[in-house]
Amino acid sequence: MPELRKDPVVGRWVIISTERSRRPGHFTPVTGNGEPGQSPFASGREEMTPPEVFAVRSNGGRDGPGWSVRVVPNKFPALEIEGSLDRRGEGLYDKMNGVGAHEVVIETPDPEAQLADLPVDQIRNVLLAWRERMRDLRNDPRLRYALVFKNHGPGAGATIEHSHSQIIATPIIPRMVQEELDGSRRYFELKERCVFSDIIDQETGEGQGRRVVARTERYIVLSPFAPRFPFETWILPMARRAGYHTIDDEGELHELAGVLKDTLGRLNAALDAPPYNLVLHTAPLAEPEVPYYHWHLEIMPKLTRVAGFEIGSGFYINPTPPEDAAQYLRDVGVRA
Amino acid sequence: MPELRKDPVVGRWVIISTERSRRPGHFTPVTGNGEPGQSPFASGREEMTPPEVFAVRSNGGRDGPGWSVRVVPNKFPALEIEGSLDRRGEGLYDKMNGVGAHEVVIETPDPEAQLADLPVDQIRNVLLAWRERMRDLRNDPRLRYALVFKNHGPGAGATIEHSHSQIIATPIIPRMVQEELDGSRRYFELKERCVFSDIIDQETGEGQGRRVVARTERYIVLSPFAPRFPFETWILPMARRAGYHTIDDEGELHELAGVLKDTLGRLNAALDAPPYNLVLHTAPLAEPEVPYYHWHLEIMPKLTRVAGFEIGSGFYINPTPPEDAAQYLRDVGVRA
Repeated sequence: MPELRKDPVVGRWVIISTERSRRPGHFTPVTGNGEPGQSPFASGREEMTPPEVFAVRSNGGRDGPGWSVRVVPNKFPALEIEGSLDRRGEGLYDKMNGVGAHEVVIETPDPEAQLADLPVDQIRNVLLAWRERMRDLRNDPRLRYALVFKNHGPGAGATIEHSHSQIIATPIIPRMVQEELDGSRRYFELKERCVFSDIIDQETGEGQGRRVVARTERYIVLSPFAPRFPFETWILPMARRAGYHTIDDEGELHELAGVLKDTLGRLNAALDAPPYNLVLHTAPLAEPEVPYYHWHLEIMPKLTRVAGFEIGSGFYINPTPPEDAAQYLRDVGVRA
Repeated sequence: MPELRKDPVVGRWVIISTERSRRPGHFTPVTGNGEPGQSPFASGREEMTPPEVFAVRSNGGRDGPGWSVRVVPNKFPALEIEGSLDRRGEGLYDKMNGVGAHEVVIETPDPEAQLADLPVDQIRNVLLAWRERMRDLRNDPRLRYALVFKNHGPGAGATIEHSHSQIIATPIIPRMVQEELDGSRRYFELKERCVFSDIIDQETGEGQGRRVVARTERYIVLSPFAPRFPFETWILPMARRAGYHTIDDEGELHELAGVLKDTLGRLNAALDAPPYNLVLHTAPLAEPEVPYYHWHLEIMPKLTRVAGFEIGSGFYINPTPPEDAAQYLRDVGVRA
C-alpha cells in the first residue's frame, strides 16, 4: 500500500510509492506503449485496461468498442482504492495509507488524434466525463479532492501518446488548491467580494484587456497578472461557481469545450504545438458552494526547463510578460 | 527594469523580465559558452565577466588570475541592483521594481572540475564565499533574502558547464522559505521546541537511523521523511542556528565542506553522477537569530521529469521511499 506522508515543517503531503520502489539505475524513462500503433487505449483493445468506470458510448456494451470517451482505473495507480485511511503517527511525523482513486480519461478512440484537434462535441464529452467522475467520487467519504490534469507530450511528462487526461482523488486537499482557497477566503473576509470576480472585473474594465486572450458569453481566457511560466493561460467562468461538478447546463459544457479548443489551438499556433500541462482547479469534493472561489483551468506550456531551484524555493522567473503573451495569442487568433 | 509581481490569490511573487521578453520561437535552449574550452568563467578570461565583488585569491590583483573562488554579478541578471523598490498597485494587483542582486559564484578556475571533485579546502572556499556575500548583502536595507542555489548539469537547468552556484538577493522572502518559517514558528508556539531539532532527535534516537545517510560531529545528512523527489537529501547542522551567515568558526566551515563533498560523492556513485539542484535554506537577511529555525542544504537529484501537474498542484508522487534511498546512499559509502 502506498503511503501519504506529511512534511512536519511545511505540512505538505506527498505520495510515497512503497511497493514499487525505484532503485538507482531504474530512472531511465519508461518506453513502450508510446507508439500509436501499440496504444493500450485504442478502440478494440479494451481488454488491455482495467474495466471501465464510465464511458460515453453510442453503441456497444461495457468494455467493448463503440465509445467516444472512456474512463478506466490506472493500471499502475499511484494510490489504491481499497482500504481504510488508518491515520497514524511515527514519532512527530504523520502518515496515512495511500488510499485514493487514480483514473485515466481516454479522450478519443483514435490513438493519433490530440485533444486540440478533436471536434467540439468530442471535447464536450471529455469535459462531461470529468464532471461525471467527480460527481461519483463525491460519494466516497474518504476522498476530499479530485484533481483532474493532463500531461501532453513527453516534454510535459506524458508516457503514453494516446490522448488522455488523469484524475487523482485523494483524502487530502492538494497544497496549491488549499492555498488558493485560503487566499481567496481571506480576500473575501476583507472585501466581501470574490477575488476571482474582482480579477475578471478589472481585466475586462474600460481601457483594460491587455491580458485578455479571448472572451465568450460565459468564459474568459486570461494571461494572469503574475504567471510562473511564459504563456501560462487560465480559462475562468465569468460567473462565480466554486465546484466544476456543479455545471449542469449543456450549453455551459459545450461553450467551455469550444473555448478550450480555441485556446489550445492558439497555443499550438503561436508556440509550434508545445508540450503542456493542464490542471483543473476546483473546490474540494465535499465543500458546499462557497462565495469566494471560481473553478478554473490552468494551462502551462512547457517552454523553459524548470530548474529544481524554482521548485525548491517556490520562486519563479518568467521571461515573457503576460501582456506580451496575451497579445501573441490574440493575434494568432486573428490570423487563423 | 524587471518587475516583481504578486499573485492576488495565493500571494506568490514572481520575477517578470519585462525588457528581455521571450517571444514565441525564442524558447530553444541557450547554447554557446557550454564548452569547457570557451568558458567565460575560466582563469585568464576575467574580462568576460563584470568586475568581481568577492574573491578568494592567493595572489594576483582584482579581476586578474590567481583566484580560487570568484564572485561576479550575473551578466544577464534576473534583477537589477540599482533603483528603488517603488511599491505600487495596479487596481487590485501589487508590484514593485525588480530590484535585487544576481551573482555568480565561480567555484573553481578549472572549467572542467565539478564541485563534488574539488578538494575539501576548495569547497570550503565556496562555502566561505556564500557566507561573505550574504554578510555583505545584509547591509542593503532593500534586500530581505539571499537565495543561494546551484543547478548542476543541463538536465537541472545549468546553461554553463563551468562549475558555479548563484545568489539571488530579493526584496521579498521566497515562498518556500516563508512557509518553512511559518510552519516552524507554529510548531515552536505549540511545543516550545524547534521542529528541526526534534527531527534530528527522532532520526538519531535509539532504534532509528533508517533515514540517516551520514553523520559527523556537527552535521547530519538525512533522507527526509516526506521527500518530494527520489533521493532528495538534506544536510543540517546538529545544533540550532537559523542564519547560515552566522557560521563563524573555521572548523564548522571545513567540516561542512567535507560533508558536502561526501554527500555529493555518494549521490554520484549511487546514481551515476546525476544532474542535481542544491538550495540553501536560511533565515531572512535581517531576521535576528530565531529559536525555531535551522538553516539547511537541500539537494535534489533530477531523476524523474517533474510534470507541470506537480508544479501546478503542489502535490508530489515519489517512487523511492526515503528509507530505501538512505540505505543505498549509506551502502555506497561503505563500498567507496
